[in-house]
Amino acid sequence: MNTPKIPDFYKKVILVNRPVGLPKESDFSLADTPVPIPKDGEILVRAHYLSADPFQRMRLDEKSGYGKTLNIGDTVLGRIVGDVVISNNPDFKIGDFVEGMLGWQEYAISDCSNKRAEYAPGITKIDPTIGSISSWLGILGFPGITAYFSLLKTAKLSNNENVLVSAAAGAVGSIVGQIAKIMNCKVIGITSTQEKSQYIKQKLGFDESISYKETKDITKQIKKIFPQGIDVFIDNTGGHIADSVFPCLNQNARVVLVGNISQNNITTKTKRTDFQNIFMSKRIELNGFIVYDFENLADEARNKIGNWLNNKKIQFPQTIEEGIENAPKAFISMLNGKNIGKQLIRLKISKEKNT
Amino acid sequence: MNTPKIPDFYKKVILVNRPVGLPKESDFSLADTPVPIPKDGEILVRAHYLSADPFQRMRLDEKSGYGKTLNIGDTVLGRIVGDVVISNNPDFKIGDFVEGMLGWQEYAISDCSNKRAEYAPGITKIDPTIGSISSWLGILGFPGITAYFSLLKTAKLSNNENVLVSAAAGAVGSIVGQIAKIMNCKVIGITSTQEKSQYIKQKLGFDESISYKETKDITKQIKKIFPQGIDVFIDNTGGHIADSVFPCLNQNARVVLVGNISQNNITTKTKRTDFQNIFMSKRIELNGFIVYDFENLADEARNKIGNWLNNKKIQFPQTIEEGIENAPKAFISMLNGKNIGKQLIRLKISKEKNT
Repeated sequence: MNTPKIPDFYKKVILVNRPVGLPKESDFSLADTPVPIPKDGEILVRAHYLSADPFQRMRLDEKSGYGKTLNIGDTVLGRIVGDVVISNNPDFKIGDFVEGMLGWQEYAISDCSNKRAEYAPGITKIDPTIGSISSWLGILGFPGITAYFSLLKTAKLSNNENVLVSAAAGAVGSIVGQIAKIMNCKVIGITSTQEKSQYIKQKLGFDESISYKETKDITKQIKKIFPQGIDVFIDNTGGHIADSVFPCLNQNARVVLVGNISQNNITTKTKRTDFQNIFMSKRIELNGFIVYDFENLADEARNKIGNWLNNKKIQFPQTIEEGIENAPKAFISMLNGKNIGKQLIRLKISKEKNT
Repeated sequence: MNTPKIPDFYKKVILVNRPVGLPKESDFSLADTPVPIPKDGEILVRAHYLSADPFQRMRLDEKSGYGKTLNIGDTVLGRIVGDVVISNNPDFKIGDFVEGMLGWQEYAISDCSNKRAEYAPGITKIDPTIGSISSWLGILGFPGITAYFSLLKTAKLSNNENVLVSAAAGAVGSIVGQIAKIMNCKVIGITSTQEKSQYIKQKLGFDESISYKETKDITKQIKKIFPQGIDVFIDNTGGHIADSVFPCLNQNARVVLVGNISQNNITTKTKRTDFQNIFMSKRIELNGFIVYDFENLADEARNKIGNWLNNKKIQFPQTIEEGIENAPKAFISMLNGKNIGKQLIRLKISKEKNT
């Protein structure tokens, strides 16, 4: 493979204004930066796709329960996939594809370590025979790994149980529902809109769905269309949507707290309903979930999901925006729940190379 | 042993008015009833002690998350210990002591089954060599079993962890703290009053304590006097006291929801603080706990606790009221948190026989 042509300058997305509530496009800006030169052991990665994920919103705040947040002027924290264009590391050759938290930028250095979580410049080498390179940001990336382990390890899902997932048309929720169906579970999904609600039933095989924006009493509606109750609740939203689900839990139900997107863009703290008596009388188990705890088991999830992909047992819907300049727009759209499946930003190089 | 003299009539405590909020003594009444005759396989038990427990409050409401509640005129649901005065069952002889949910009454029939939970007329035979008969309603009864299994099975407490228990001077809390101390843990207890706070430190060996009524900012106070944070939180109170503890949890902390006494006597539902982000980022595990799930393991707890009692490693404070006519008063006093340790009502026969 020929050495790719590398420009002197590249574009990155920086934070110029700390958003209050829902971010605005003007909170971000594009900056031109000299392409860095990798040191010994490092590689230079050229991004093909940027990933837009809910966790990124929290990093824009001054404080985050998860630790470090961005300063004004910093490159927006985000995951990317791309190809290696310079390699000073024997384990990576030019043309290899990798995935990592390398930031929303066209070019990035990786130290090639296996520290792939927050603010860590490590990477995962992509095996394109398992799935397309963009799928490594979704179903073969942290959203898929989240769906897999939240269901199978944390909730210890058994065959034939009854599963509810919130944000069910999202990157994680859409996979949660499909894995549960593979395990012969009955699955109900909560989405924001009627369109997404129909999508998960008609295209992804969910048994039931509810559009919360068009449902007056979510609890009543769940009890009506899903009278068997809920054994496993994978919660991506928190807030009043989660509170509407709790009265429908069965005895010994497991709740996995995976996300809190209902609270991402609001400026006043929601109060929650008191379910202590229900949690006690029904012996409910709740677990906070962080996918990074399962990083060293990621290959197990990828192999399993890869097989399902090969056997056409699982789909990975994507919503794709074009061009790094539209990354903030795609991010805000995703925070508004406009996406179906994984929200991605495809960069120009990717179209040229048709990845 | 001579056959005990059995009267024709006995007294029981009945519900005459459904309380709203904190019960009043006038919500209860004493009724005279003919002593029943046990059928084949049954025994007649003469109560020596009545037990006053927080769970009884919920059974007085029209609806309870735990199922069946009392009707007006019903005997108040409650546990008792007493001796066998008539036996039509070969496994029980006159003079044996037993414990069970036989209701707040001087005489009761048991079917001698091992169904000893709610509304079930089964019993546990008391081994008085392990502990006094009154202790079988407290440290050797469900409060002790609750403390033992909530800590060791549900929270999976390890040596040297940091434990917080709410309602720490109560029947369950006082034992939780002492078991945690036996396991070389650091223990902080939250109580209502300064008196109880001092008691658990000075008499029961807690490392730290907080009187919530005299503490403006409980969270701040915990962080100040217990800066190592909390690995295991046994929650007997719920409500704002529990919400004050959550910000002090360590990563991978376990919370066991054992009680909700802060909500027992209030008429408007408390809202809870939203801790979803903390639960997620710290991977908190919460479990609703019902002691009846551990009933078939009760002997394990009783043997262990019995050894600690023998070795003087554990104490069981009791607050004792005299006379069945004072049972409602004792119950209300316990709901008001006036008791230290297990609240009991000693009946006249017990004083005569010095049990």
